[in-house]
Parts: sequence; structure tokens; C-alpha cells
Amino acid sequence: MSAFVRHDDSKERDLGGGVRRRVLAHNPEIMAVEVSFETGAQGEMHTHPHVQCSYVLSGRFIYTLGEQDHEMAPGDSITVPGGAAHGTLCLEKGALLDVFTPEREDFLK
Amino acid sequence: MSAFVRHDDSKERDLGGGVRRRVLAHNPEIMAVEVSFETGAQGEMHTHPHVQCSYVLSGRFIYTLGEQDHEMAPGDSITVPGGAAHGTLCLEKGALLDVFTPEREDFLK
Repeated sequence: MSAFVRHDDSKERDLGGGVRRRVLAHNPEIMAVEVSFETGAQGEMHTHPHVQCSYVLSGRFIYTLGEQDHEMAPGDSITVPGGAAHGTLCLEKGALLDVFTPEREDFLK
Repeated sequence: MSAFVRHDDSKERDLGGGVRRRVLAHNPEIMAVEVSFETGAQGEMHTHPHVQCSYVLSGRFIYTLGEQDHEMAPGDSITVPGGAAHGTLCLEKGALLDVFTPEREDFLK
């Protein structure tokens, strides 16, 4: 549990396929995660019980929530209810800030 | 409740003192809020029961959590437990992304 996290002190994890993840500040109830994508990289459709909010830090994305696609640019944001299927395709290299409640314990292993 | 929010469709509210707020995507369980500060502007020390995470989008800030000051730059992040006193002083014009759980109903009035 880290109340304050300096960006470059967070460990970047290469998930493969042009996707990298940094777990930032978190406590049991909330967790910030920066996810970087190369152009054309994908976050496959998936679900989890955690409620999520995604905010575009840079780049351009197609973000799919359920059956609906949203084209997203910097500053755009979306909420994902717990259990809702979602995924993304990166149209132009960039990064998302994903915030989860509660924290993603699976990201701490 | 707005699952997807395009940045420029969100209404910017001038809070005075060089601070402006945009409520972005939110549902009852999570809410993203962009807060812009002029250099020297302050977010006074305050508390609320909501758990919060703040991420620096741009600029530089002194962020006070309880008795402790943290100097924060873009990409740095911090979590604030429910009920914990916190505030900020903007050292260099910029913006924070604040994410709350649950949503701040008071911001929707």
C-alpha cells in the first residue's frame, strides 16, 4: 500500500503485444494504473468485478464497452460497471489512466 | 450518470481563486474530476468520507496529506483515505485528475 507514488519509482511491466503497465498509488479501496499502448496494440475484451474509470492521458483509442464503441482522445473518460465486458484498440500510441475500486489485488502479485 | 464523457462536453465550473473543476465520467461508485489550478492557487485543507486518488496531469503541486507535504509532478499520484485531511498548493499552473469512490454527489448539484 503506497499513499504517494512518484511516477518513475513505479515499476513498468511489459505485458507483451505493445502494452505496458505501471501500478501507481493504491490502497485497498482505490488503485491508479497507467497503461501504455503502441499504435495497433489491444486490450482484449475482458471482465472483472471491480468498478473502473478510464481517462485518456495521450493518444487515441477505440474503447469498447459492452456492444458499444467509443473513439477517445486525450481528456475523454469512461466508467465501466463491475462485471461489464470492455476492451480497447489503440489507434495512435498513447496511455490510459485506469482507476479501479476496489484495488486490483491480481496486479500486485 | 454518464458512462462516456468527451472532455469538451463536460461543463467547466469556476470555483474562484484560480481553481476550475470539470466533472468527467461517473457512476454511483466512481467519479473522475479534472481540477485546473493557476500558479499559486490553493485547494484548502478539507475532508470528506469518499476515498480519493489524485494524479498530476500537468504542472507542479505541493500536496498535503495529514501532516505530510509531497511535491508532485506529472505522473505522480497519491491516495487519500476516507476522512483524511488533504489540500494542495499549485507551484506551477496545471491540473490534477481526482478520482473518488463513491461519487461526489455534492459535485452534481
